[in-house]
Amino acid sequence: MKFKTPADSAVVMTEMVLPQHTNSMGTVFGGTVVAWVDIAAGICAGRHCERPVVTACIDTMHFFNPIKLGWIANIYASVNHAFHTSCEVGVKIIAENPISGEKFHTSTGYLTFVALDSLGKPCSIPGLDPKNKVDQGRAEAAVMRREARLAFKAKLEKEMKAKGDA
Amino acid sequence: MKFKTPADSAVVMTEMVLPQHTNSMGTVFGGTVVAWVDIAAGICAGRHCERPVVTACIDTMHFFNPIKLGWIANIYASVNHAFHTSCEVGVKIIAENPISGEKFHTSTGYLTFVALDSLGKPCSIPGLDPKNKVDQGRAEAAVMRREARLAFKAKLEKEMKAKGDA
Amino acid sequence: MKFKTPADSAVVMTEMVLPQHTNSMGTVFGGTVVAWVDIAAGICAGRHCERPVVTACIDTMHFFNPIKLGWIANIYASVNHAFHTSCEVGVKIIAENPISGEKFHTSTGYLTFVALDSLGKPCSIPGLDPKNKVDQGRAEAAVMRREARLAFKAKLEKEMKAKGDA
Amino acid sequence: MKFKTPADSAVVMTEMVLPQHTNSMGTVFGGTVVAWVDIAAGICAGRHCERPVVTACIDTMHFFNPIKLGWIANIYASVNHAFHTSCEVGVKIIAENPISGEKFHTSTGYLTFVALDSLGKPCSIPGLDPKNKVDQGRAEAAVMRREARLAFKAKLEKEMKAKGDA
Amino acid sequence: MKFKTPADSAVVMTEMVLPQHTNSMGTVFGGTVVAWVDIAAGICAGRHCERPVVTACIDTMHFFNPIKLGWIANIYASVNHAFHTSCEVGVKIIAENPISGEKFHTSTGYLTFVALDSLGKPCSIPGLDPKNKVDQGRAEAAVMRREARLAFKAKLEKEMKAKGDA
Amino acid sequence: MKFKTPADSAVVMTEMVLPQHTNSMGTVFGGTVVAWVDIAAGICAGRHCERPVVTACIDTMHFFNPIKLGWIANIYASVNHAFHTSCEVGVKIIAENPISGEKFHTSTGYLTFVALDSLGKPCSIPGLDPKNKVDQGRAEAAVMRREARLAFKAKLEKEMKAKGDA
Repeated sequence: MKFKTPADSAVVMTEMVLPQHTNSMGTVFGGTVVAWVDIAAGICAGRHCERPVVTACIDTMHFFNPIKLGWIANIYASVNHAFHTSCEVGVKIIAENPISGEKFHTSTGYLTFVALDSLGKPCSIPGLDPKNKVDQGRAEAAVMRREARLAFKAKLEKEMKAKGDA
Repeated sequence: MKFKTPADSAVVMTEMVLPQHTNSMGTVFGGTVVAWVDIAAGICAGRHCERPVVTACIDTMHFFNPIKLGWIANIYASVNHAFHTSCEVGVKIIAENPISGEKFHTSTGYLTFVALDSLGKPCSIPGLDPKNKVDQGRAEAAVMRREARLAFKAKLEKEMKAKGDA
Repeated sequence: MKFKTPADSAVVMTEMVLPQHTNSMGTVFGGTVVAWVDIAAGICAGRHCERPVVTACIDTMHFFNPIKLGWIANIYASVNHAFHTSCEVGVKIIAENPISGEKFHTSTGYLTFVALDSLGKPCSIPGLDPKNKVDQGRAEAAVMRREARLAFKAKLEKEMKAKGDA
Repeated sequence: MKFKTPADSAVVMTEMVLPQHTNSMGTVFGGTVVAWVDIAAGICAGRHCERPVVTACIDTMHFFNPIKLGWIANIYASVNHAFHTSCEVGVKIIAENPISGEKFHTSTGYLTFVALDSLGKPCSIPGLDPKNKVDQGRAEAAVMRREARLAFKAKLEKEMKAKGDA
Repeated sequence: MKFKTPADSAVVMTEMVLPQHTNSMGTVFGGTVVAWVDIAAGICAGRHCERPVVTACIDTMHFFNPIKLGWIANIYASVNHAFHTSCEVGVKIIAENPISGEKFHTSTGYLTFVALDSLGKPCSIPGLDPKNKVDQGRAEAAVMRREARLAFKAKLEKEMKAKGDA
Repeated sequence: MKFKTPADSAVVMTEMVLPQHTNSMGTVFGGTVVAWVDIAAGICAGRHCERPVVTACIDTMHFFNPIKLGWIANIYASVNHAFHTSCEVGVKIIAENPISGEKFHTSTGYLTFVALDSLGKPCSIPGLDPKNKVDQGRAEAAVMRREARLAFKAKLEKEMKAKGDA
């Protein structure tokens, strides 16, 4: 089994906030931020897995600060843990006023991706080799989030079944 | 104080999946789905609050089924509960194959929006008047989610402070 | 032969007017409205026909009221009549100021779609079963519009032939 | 009063059909064609009127031929007639296969634009000076279309009033 | 060997500057202008070559004047010279204020395209038949630019080799 | 006078190639690459200048390798030299196949930006403090490119004047 470090697939994405990204108040939509986060995290997961990946879950995201028209969104993504056919990617979004140089922590997100084989079925992926204490701390926290996630998913599926949802 | 029902602000959004929405596997990005969800929920919250609103939080979203190129995304949003200056909107996404008529529950989301006054400060909003048992059940569940959300937010803010994050 | 009601394929589409939809005066382009109308009507026709459909004709559309940045466009589409290989879809567009709650009838449109088989040739579609007086009135008006449409099309084709147009 | 010829404001627009313009069958949406037509005609009307303009009406458009992915849309717009505060623009769309050089007449459209003063009220515009028999023929046909348009608009407004529509 | 004139493939493209094209100062991005130029020149090269084409080189572009929100970009492209498997296209961009009628020369560009066969390999293309002194002057200048281009490319490739760049 | 290092404003941008970025052959348009490059370089220049900036010139760009649908574009930008009111930014584009991990040098670009004051006039900017031999080598090469650029610009302006171009 192959092992890779978080640094092997880390992603830095930088976006300038243009009129097409903003609501009528001149700040970026929360949904646009999540769309950027999903792309950054998807690139990161794809690099780690060396396979096409699809988003299975996006954990709760709080938005602490707005990102304004003309500002810069700095998005950092790295793999926190690799499980059998899926991995968790952590993403941090820092808003930056390029004129004043001020930076604001806007949000943090955790996304789970599943790797797919040529038939579209989940397939095994490289393991994660945490290189230092920070990497190890993230991997441990990811295991705990995964348990909460699976419990929540099971609850959702039970509710969907009860309602006859597909 | 003014009261409004969930039906007063409910939103139905219908999107056709075009090439511009899809990844290289011909299915919609998770992030694109969340961007649609944020718009639908934002319209719903804006109707309820009669104010500009911004996304404060997007709760965990699991993606159970893909939405393919040429399919239809049916997005249903309604207010679950209105608090002092914020409200929770619940959103359901149903993927539909228009040729076969098959429908698949893709995801469910809960988003929190804050209403803003002319100076961009949070302001009070109309209350919610649940009309029936379904509305009441949703309002009660929203209160419980809100508690979990605020606890999680406090934890995040404590961690951010510890790291010296803005 | 299969029959379906207008309600079986009715579409509600809700769009928020963003900077990317507007001209330099802060209102939506007429062409952007028609693009939304074509998508909504195409989803409706596709649902009725259970086939890929293409737009054959868009009837005259008057624009009575502007839709401003930050406002909501409510688009309602339903099948008015089903002919052998084509159907007419009626669309109504209501502009909504989400802060004041005001609503304005912006435009009404009638679009004709043709259903295509796997070789891209027109193919037969389900019939329409009007459920009530409103449905029946719409179906009758659609027949009259169709006659005007076919006469106009024949005139255009004659003119094109006279000019040697492909 | 100032007079201008159709040539003074004629527009040629050329678009390449990209994946973002196409439906799942690889051809351009009818609505996308109308969006292009509205931009081309709006530029033409703006040049003639020397004022901001808004679309008041788009006459019936038949789509005779598809425009495929990788093909070129050639769009020609010129003013047919200038009335007191509005003008009619005629638009022709020619699809072109750039590999084979084949060209196909896809559609013809007639759009009415109203010029606006600084307060957003309709304002007078330059007259049209048709230079030759073709220009004169178009101007005469525009007068007849205008009469039909106004009659149709009056009928619509009467129906809207009857229904209590805004 | 087939020969074609510059007029056989000349392109006129007209774009209206919308909010989605502008930076936070209300003018078009340089990169957006180049994206329009690349499309216009690519259509022109495709028409001349009767083959799919890809951009091999974009020569230095100076931007002399801004293009503002609500203005019009007039883009003119024509083939300057056809070599064995590639051709040079010249492009001129004129900014136009539609209200005042003012026009400003914004930029000039020279782009080189390579024609591809069905396997994606460069293939021979029609020759260029300059019809007049202007055409001939452009063809001669294109030969000189090509020499500078090839010398610069050889220098770049040597540097890349020295650095071990792929 | 303030001095800043190249590292103070360096930008890493990562883009996933989606259907909306590609031509009909499944590779990114040259113009789309330049649009990304212009954004990345503009963010970099804005960070260095602490002012709004506009693109004054984009030097010749050769495209050595295609970037395919589903691949990743890695874009690196840093300031090479700061002059009185303008700076040169160097940009490198590396195409990456995320499945195989292969990387290809696609292009290198040099862009010149001018910083603007509140009236839109060029204004002075911080100087560049090259930290090491690599930084110094880039700064020296930038001076030489600047001379070539200014000579070419003077030649263009002379030609434009001769033709009576605005």
